[in-house]
Amino acid sequence: MHNFPFHSLTKQIFVMNTRRQFLQKITGSAVACTLLTKTSNLTEVAPVPYDGPLLRVAIMGLGSYGTRVADAIKDCKKAKLVGVISGTPAKISEWQKKYNIDPKNCYNYENYSEIKSNPDIDAVYVITPNGLHKQHVIGVAAAGKHAICEKPMAISVKECNEMIDACNKANVKLLIGYRMHFEPKTVAVINMRKNNEFGKILFFQGLTGFKIGDPAQWRLNKELAGGGAMMDIGIYSVNGARYMTGEDPVWVTAQEIKTDQVKFKAGVDETIQFQFGFPSGAGASCLSTYTMNNLDRFFLNGDKGFVEMQPSTGYGPIAGKTHLGPLTQPHTTHQTIQMDEMAQIILQNKTPVVPVDGIEGRRDMEIIAAIYKAVKSGKKVNIKYA
Amino acid sequence: MHNFPFHSLTKQIFVMNTRRQFLQKITGSAVACTLLTKTSNLTEVAPVPYDGPLLRVAIMGLGSYGTRVADAIKDCKKAKLVGVISGTPAKISEWQKKYNIDPKNCYNYENYSEIKSNPDIDAVYVITPNGLHKQHVIGVAAAGKHAICEKPMAISVKECNEMIDACNKANVKLLIGYRMHFEPKTVAVINMRKNNEFGKILFFQGLTGFKIGDPAQWRLNKELAGGGAMMDIGIYSVNGARYMTGEDPVWVTAQEIKTDQVKFKAGVDETIQFQFGFPSGAGASCLSTYTMNNLDRFFLNGDKGFVEMQPSTGYGPIAGKTHLGPLTQPHTTHQTIQMDEMAQIILQNKTPVVPVDGIEGRRDMEIIAAIYKAVKSGKKVNIKYA
Repeated sequence: MHNFPFHSLTKQIFVMNTRRQFLQKITGSAVACTLLTKTSNLTEVAPVPYDGPLLRVAIMGLGSYGTRVADAIKDCKKAKLVGVISGTPAKISEWQKKYNIDPKNCYNYENYSEIKSNPDIDAVYVITPNGLHKQHVIGVAAAGKHAICEKPMAISVKECNEMIDACNKANVKLLIGYRMHFEPKTVAVINMRKNNEFGKILFFQGLTGFKIGDPAQWRLNKELAGGGAMMDIGIYSVNGARYMTGEDPVWVTAQEIKTDQVKFKAGVDETIQFQFGFPSGAGASCLSTYTMNNLDRFFLNGDKGFVEMQPSTGYGPIAGKTHLGPLTQPHTTHQTIQMDEMAQIILQNKTPVVPVDGIEGRRDMEIIAAIYKAVKSGKKVNIKYA
Repeated sequence: MHNFPFHSLTKQIFVMNTRRQFLQKITGSAVACTLLTKTSNLTEVAPVPYDGPLLRVAIMGLGSYGTRVADAIKDCKKAKLVGVISGTPAKISEWQKKYNIDPKNCYNYENYSEIKSNPDIDAVYVITPNGLHKQHVIGVAAAGKHAICEKPMAISVKECNEMIDACNKANVKLLIGYRMHFEPKTVAVINMRKNNEFGKILFFQGLTGFKIGDPAQWRLNKELAGGGAMMDIGIYSVNGARYMTGEDPVWVTAQEIKTDQVKFKAGVDETIQFQFGFPSGAGASCLSTYTMNNLDRFFLNGDKGFVEMQPSTGYGPIAGKTHLGPLTQPHTTHQTIQMDEMAQIILQNKTPVVPVDGIEGRRDMEIIAAIYKAVKSGKKVNIKYA
């Protein structure tokens, strides 16, 4: 467990000297968020404005996904976008206007270590290319801020270890952007599985892919992406296989298909089929691809029931059904829920249904490394986790 | 192409001396089957009783699937159940009553070579355990009758070759019981694929399995079954991968999972995941299992569209949808359509949408042999077809 400073809390809270005191304060605050009011014969829950602790976030990397996160944070109750880190001054001034960012909270890649002395930023969400995650997360940790890092966590297990170590040493939290771990239909399915409603889990299938456009983008650059489709969209099937089954694979086999050697250069995978074996004897069969549009399907089969989800991980509403009927949990923008939940994980030590920490991120990277090894060797690769 | 005697046709047809004359006669007959009649303002199609050639079939092996086929043939217009071959006298007398079988058309495994001199039987449908198909088909061929053989065609490629040779030498047709090749929704999908409505085919997924019961049944006996789930239900994914994509795989990888060593003895597979690579660069990912109930899912993805089917190969109505909407072709008992179509293949040289001949059966066996080899070696196996 990390110890961490509560940047965003009032001075009143800082005088508390135990975590229990802190958590009691928080719990009280959370309860105060809803008031039961009686009107005529109906008992209604009237929401009152949130006045609990707020996670004040800076986004590093103002690309399209950064923009998506920034837009989503607007609707957050527990998180707020307060700062930016970018190498492009024009983007910074655009974001200042668009998101009402205080100029004093704007940084570039040369000076962002100065965030250390900025008491108005609690956490930095690193949304830069995969190959830069390690140095940026370590930089954020060095600045004494909590790091949220977009997935994949890094481009090697070694990098993941360095990032975990750096955050531990700096006493800051490290969270990975696993937005599906908070998505309501996904969480409902995970809870059904935990409650044994599917029975003994036997098989998972994850098919995730899309047709990638611009061949010049960083996602098709080995140094920056660390791979190809697997590092971008395949990881959804990797991670999904784990949270859907509730197990970590012990072996993997994988087969690569490459039809376009120009667009997908050496080390940049176009399509990979991969299979897992789990300790229970369950299996998984997955597909990661940059050549098939809107491929976004999960299927979990147990001896008492099943769930199929399509879309299963896309940004829009998730849809699916189980043997009992359709999943009906309402849709909220995934990144809004994610950031509100991450605020609670960071500020209140809330435990998510499925971890979103560095260990979780490293585990996916250990599996992806095994997949690449299996592709290369053509053999079954046994996975040993750190 | 086989030359074959037209047992079931009238003497009038035998005097024709060219295939063209024969086909012209048949075509005329087929057209005569429907009459356009005008009533008030509506043009209605009034079916008239079928009076074309009839395939007179004997069933060898009176088990549960044999019974299913016998029941289905009742509704056939072009095929008729007229005989049985069984080692169990009680079954024979039961079938005689139930299906009104003439005692002179009843045989056992000792005397069925005598069918040779029975002019009232055109074809024998071999529905015995897989391990007996070879000897039975060769026996049927030796008796000068067309052989319909349930799938899998045999338990080795070598056996398939012997069966093909025997039927060729005897100038009889050899058809394999690929009922899905005639199923209307499946045929509609195959035609859509041929018409390029899915665009370039990229990926096929076939998940087929059920939970097998009685551990003493022949399907769990290596000698009689030739394997386990793969030979029984996995073959639907193997064959489906081919007719859905329109290609034959050039490589296969496969992984076995066995959780019950008692029920699934050496050589009897419980669950196998297998993957194909096709010449076009498309891939397939399939599952064959005896431990998951009602697993019956096909998914085909092209760059212009998709189809998902579930159930995709079960005996009941097939259901599915494409990017254009649901598949709406009406359901007819698969085995009824199959036998009516096989009658036309045998009697009228009709060409099915996808072949159902011995070459087709052998091809699946070549692939299954490669799957078993891949399971054993843990390596990618390149497939070379005879």
